[in-house]
Amino acid sequence: MNYKLHLQYDGTDFHGWQTQDGQRTVQGELERTLSLLEDAEVKVVGSGRTDTGVHAAGQVANVRLNREFTPDRLRIAINGNIWRDVRVMTAEKAPDEFHARFSAKSKHYVYRLVNAPVMSPFCSRFAHHEPRFLDVGRMNETARLFLGEHDWTAFSAARSDVENRVRTIKSFTVESFWDARANSSIIEFRISANGFLRYMVRSIVGTMLEVGRGEKDSDTILTAIVSGDRDLAGKTAPANGLTLLKVDYE
Amino acid sequence: MNYKLHLQYDGTDFHGWQTQDGQRTVQGELERTLSLLEDAEVKVVGSGRTDTGVHAAGQVANVRLNREFTPDRLRIAINGNIWRDVRVMTAEKAPDEFHARFSAKSKHYVYRLVNAPVMSPFCSRFAHHEPRFLDVGRMNETARLFLGEHDWTAFSAARSDVENRVRTIKSFTVESFWDARANSSIIEFRISANGFLRYMVRSIVGTMLEVGRGEKDSDTILTAIVSGDRDLAGKTAPANGLTLLKVDYE
Repeated sequence: MNYKLHLQYDGTDFHGWQTQDGQRTVQGELERTLSLLEDAEVKVVGSGRTDTGVHAAGQVANVRLNREFTPDRLRIAINGNIWRDVRVMTAEKAPDEFHARFSAKSKHYVYRLVNAPVMSPFCSRFAHHEPRFLDVGRMNETARLFLGEHDWTAFSAARSDVENRVRTIKSFTVESFWDARANSSIIEFRISANGFLRYMVRSIVGTMLEVGRGEKDSDTILTAIVSGDRDLAGKTAPANGLTLLKVDYE
Repeated sequence: MNYKLHLQYDGTDFHGWQTQDGQRTVQGELERTLSLLEDAEVKVVGSGRTDTGVHAAGQVANVRLNREFTPDRLRIAINGNIWRDVRVMTAEKAPDEFHARFSAKSKHYVYRLVNAPVMSPFCSRFAHHEPRFLDVGRMNETARLFLGEHDWTAFSAARSDVENRVRTIKSFTVESFWDARANSSIIEFRISANGFLRYMVRSIVGTMLEVGRGEKDSDTILTAIVSGDRDLAGKTAPANGLTLLKVDYE
């Protein structure tokens, strides 16, 4: 039976998604737990990797098991055997052909930062801190330049095994609001695409921060997209501000 | 010079507010740091104690220092010397007679809980988890019974050095909403009074949870308030859901 899992995790204490020897990873924790339940080695497929320190509010995975579970029993069995910084929010039976990575149609990320002199302790796990002034209007105008189908070489990891770096960004917005819980001003970058390259969201956000501080202009960004020149992109923004929000399937 | 400090802290790793030998406390951390800056022993006065595990988004304290600081320099000096789970959000010069505890006019608390089958990892530090159904309408109706000036003996710690247990609850609301960040349903209890006894908010919330589950009715609550009988109140709700939001001064 093929099961689809909706997962949340606080990435702070994980060495990312992907199983690695000697490192605590989300996939590794799930595979360890499921292998115990199945009494055989089990492979968990995620919609995609998340890097060290990146969080997920809506990661999706699938796993094929020989043992039969009701979805609720499976969820409870996994959650009872892993630490509480990763949770199976829901489990469901999936069609045999469902594959968390290959069936994914689009992904939604949010990058959060606290734009205030002092970082609220309520936000420090899940947001980046930028005390300098950021021009949200200017960033929002610039965000439109990133829409559409492009080769994203300039905004991705230099070393990568991916050959095709063309992806389509479907929406990209920048919003500033007051967070009553933290008593702080928050800026959220929300970005959706049919897929992302490694470091792509963090590289785009890092570039946008330079736009917001008036250090980069639209021309540079257009040139970066067209030329694929990594030197024109900004510094990759820190991992802790990034959260995978949602994965869409057909 | 008398300084007023606005503080936030994540109470998870603190043994409460009040300085205690051999325990990590918020007041203790501040006094340690300020004594270094002042090069003499310094006493920090808080608006009131918070218990082990309770958070603050708007705690207020004052401290008298012989050395002169601009408020911003003082804030930066303290924040640079304490761990990031407590932060001075702002510092300001205060009139000599300002006393964080005696000058306080009212306090506002919020108690948060996640009302869903699975606890989101994004909420587990700052909210309590209640998977059972809670009748929010019924809790809101009942909340009105707590308004006004009463002796709160039934809803406070049995052992206490406070003689006068009369306090006035000015507002008390229960709200349920969808938290997009955690992808979860949240219930917030917001309560304001001219002061609170030890465990008072958590005891009232614990009682309300029994109301929400249909285990307690209005009559029991009215009797508890009038009689001061602790056996009629509910179980004290866990500390991690509670946050001191704001302290009002004249």
